[in-house]
Amino acid sequence: MNAVVEISPGSGLPAAARAALDDRLGARVSYAEGICSQHAQSETHFPSRLPDAVVFAESTEEVIFVVRLCAEHGVKLTAFGAGTSIEGSALPIFGGISLDMSRMNRILDVNADDFDVTVEAGVTRIALNNHLRDQGLFFPVDPGADATIGGMASTRASGTNAVRYGTMREAVLSLRVVTADGREIRTARRARKSAAGYDLTHLFVGAEGTLGIITEVTLRLHPIPEVISSAVCSFETIEGAATTVIQAIQLGIPLARAEILDDIQMRAVNLWSKLDYPEKTTLFFEFHGSQASVDEQVALVEELSSGNGGGAFAWSSLPEERSRLWKARHEAYYATLGLRPGSSGWATDVCVPIGRLADCISETKHDLATCSVPATICGHVGDGNFHVLFALDPDTPAEWEEVEALNARLIARALAMDGTCTGEHGIGIGKQAALIDELGEGVDLMRHIKRALDPHGMFNPGKIFAPN
Amino acid sequence: MNAVVEISPGSGLPAAARAALDDRLGARVSYAEGICSQHAQSETHFPSRLPDAVVFAESTEEVIFVVRLCAEHGVKLTAFGAGTSIEGSALPIFGGISLDMSRMNRILDVNADDFDVTVEAGVTRIALNNHLRDQGLFFPVDPGADATIGGMASTRASGTNAVRYGTMREAVLSLRVVTADGREIRTARRARKSAAGYDLTHLFVGAEGTLGIITEVTLRLHPIPEVISSAVCSFETIEGAATTVIQAIQLGIPLARAEILDDIQMRAVNLWSKLDYPEKTTLFFEFHGSQASVDEQVALVEELSSGNGGGAFAWSSLPEERSRLWKARHEAYYATLGLRPGSSGWATDVCVPIGRLADCISETKHDLATCSVPATICGHVGDGNFHVLFALDPDTPAEWEEVEALNARLIARALAMDGTCTGEHGIGIGKQAALIDELGEGVDLMRHIKRALDPHGMFNPGKIFAPN
Repeated sequence: MNAVVEISPGSGLPAAARAALDDRLGARVSYAEGICSQHAQSETHFPSRLPDAVVFAESTEEVIFVVRLCAEHGVKLTAFGAGTSIEGSALPIFGGISLDMSRMNRILDVNADDFDVTVEAGVTRIALNNHLRDQGLFFPVDPGADATIGGMASTRASGTNAVRYGTMREAVLSLRVVTADGREIRTARRARKSAAGYDLTHLFVGAEGTLGIITEVTLRLHPIPEVISSAVCSFETIEGAATTVIQAIQLGIPLARAEILDDIQMRAVNLWSKLDYPEKTTLFFEFHGSQASVDEQVALVEELSSGNGGGAFAWSSLPEERSRLWKARHEAYYATLGLRPGSSGWATDVCVPIGRLADCISETKHDLATCSVPATICGHVGDGNFHVLFALDPDTPAEWEEVEALNARLIARALAMDGTCTGEHGIGIGKQAALIDELGEGVDLMRHIKRALDPHGMFNPGKIFAPN
Repeated sequence: MNAVVEISPGSGLPAAARAALDDRLGARVSYAEGICSQHAQSETHFPSRLPDAVVFAESTEEVIFVVRLCAEHGVKLTAFGAGTSIEGSALPIFGGISLDMSRMNRILDVNADDFDVTVEAGVTRIALNNHLRDQGLFFPVDPGADATIGGMASTRASGTNAVRYGTMREAVLSLRVVTADGREIRTARRARKSAAGYDLTHLFVGAEGTLGIITEVTLRLHPIPEVISSAVCSFETIEGAATTVIQAIQLGIPLARAEILDDIQMRAVNLWSKLDYPEKTTLFFEFHGSQASVDEQVALVEELSSGNGGGAFAWSSLPEERSRLWKARHEAYYATLGLRPGSSGWATDVCVPIGRLADCISETKHDLATCSVPATICGHVGDGNFHVLFALDPDTPAEWEEVEALNARLIARALAMDGTCTGEHGIGIGKQAALIDELGEGVDLMRHIKRALDPHGMFNPGKIFAPN
């Protein structure tokens, strides 16, 4: 929670808008500095300002009411889920209303035979999986934080098992969205696939709330595997680790997870999670399937690892051991901050074609060698996606400048390899110039779409691209 | 090739446009009735008219030239691939230029380490797989016809192995597209995943050429499995067949293909392909993996089948046997026409949540029982997607009306089950009313997007929705 928040003097809402909000929503509208301040902070380093009001919506009807009111009064509107965005996507940088979706947290419809579930946007991924467990189903997408499903859809989130199960792009079957004119539309039906018109679902997935407010999400689910087995293996080199995973994919081994952590990240994880892994480049694996299938996968991957300079596999087959291992992985960000007490986090991510991943990580390690700030690398090898996490002194501008320059070089390196400036964090505030470097005139098309669907720039202004 | 083509008198192109085309493209512009007529026909039953000209583009620069010329002169422009659309998506129903992409058939860049390939839009799926085979890679999406990759992207095509490998939605990593203002944009980089701005790739996938002209496509590839094994199994009931597949998915068995053919389709296939399968509801399976994995999958699926009234498995492990089996499946449409020599084909498809598939097929069989026209059912069980194929007498209007009414009831049935009016054929001309029934005001959003990206309605007018 490091955002620099500017305290704006009092509510900037038109009096008529404020009266209508108070009348309809009562105590579920707040102008209190404490509440507003909570909605002006994010996990990382972006400056923001306070929203003029926070509305806690409890139903689609209330979302429609707020959207229409904002349209009528020219008020900006930014949706807020769990506040775990990495690129400041939920910060109300132009004020207006922060629409808190966390009370829209009902699980509406589990269709076990169809392997899907429909939830309100404010349900979190952990709450969803707790609900599903008894039915033998799970929802695989797992960004580190316990984000809301609406927020995850809006930032096209992914996580550790995208290599097997895909990202939010593959997970979302359908959405309900309130549009700028205050109508709720449905982007698709629940069928697994459809060729019916433009793909509205994927237009809203990753739009970071700039085109409408997601109220409901229908997600694909998967059967909980019969056998789950995790392993940790240390490597002499980054190339050896990356090559192991690429070879496994070439052989068609259906890895469920294949995470890379560099030596410094391993040191941070050991300290933070009280573990004692070797402090070398390490792969965290997970295998899903029947016993026979998992045994076969494991034997093949152990053989590949040993051919690429990997050490012995440390196994975790008990659920509590596996939880401990993956909790350590998911807390990599906090572990990095733990290397330097009092530091602020800066997280970035890029994604490259997987054949280039070893090069991209190696060159980045080389670039980080002279960095004056603790910096760790971890990532999703099977996707070609990795993170660099910096632990900065918030009061030393030279460190921010140094990290900004490193981040710019990282993005340029990924783009030169035909990769993307962000695999899973989004553009938000921080990567708008990078988006133009990446897609050039394609960004003009995005602007055309934005103007067509949100002509007055009401939704989440200042994200993805600067307001017109 | 059944389209009813109206011969329009001479070229309707403005003289200046015609002169510019002739000057730049010479013999690669044609106004000949024979050529124009070939570009005004489709696989099924939609009326069309001749284009005013056919242009055979050989480069992106030529596509840009044609787009700018059409924009300048107010000429309509419809891209044409292999002409295998089922819903008339490539028919130039408002005349103008038919832009034949079949000579843009270069395979530009195979990245074996990254499991991707970039091709020009006119490459066909069979040509691509022939090119890839030596590198141990394949491109899985297989609609029956040998369609172009550009056409398959535009209709969001899928086929028999979408249950394992996904559809064009999952297969397309990136596109190059010429937009209405004559610029070529790139929708994404080659990274496996990205959270960089709006998902332009998925906006063009399935847009049926109404938003721009796709010139290049980057596709995900897969390693050719170590072992491929196919099997055919007859069932006493449709429910037994569908339940077998659903249970297999619940167990996490990674079926590569699971196709259902009803008793009449089996009779048609036996006659057409000179086979002697039992003429009962039948599943065609394919299993991919290592020997151990395939053995395990097969044992499990045989056990499930036998518990659901399935007969003995007939196996095809030799490549030539498998090719024969899948060729028979892919020719199901022609086999149905073969039931009635001289007939015209009418093909439709719907897709429902998989738990509803057995009900949807059963009710449809019941509805077809009194149909005066031969009608067969086949489909992709693991996706919830199936086809009804009718063999009509083209000269008997009462038969067309009967089939139209059956199709309307089929669509209503699928929508009532929260399914879609088309799983893989597209909207084209034939399902525009169904699209509105399916998504209601969501279609207004599509129109907003169409107007934003193609303000003068140049691209493929009259498809997905009627012109404004």
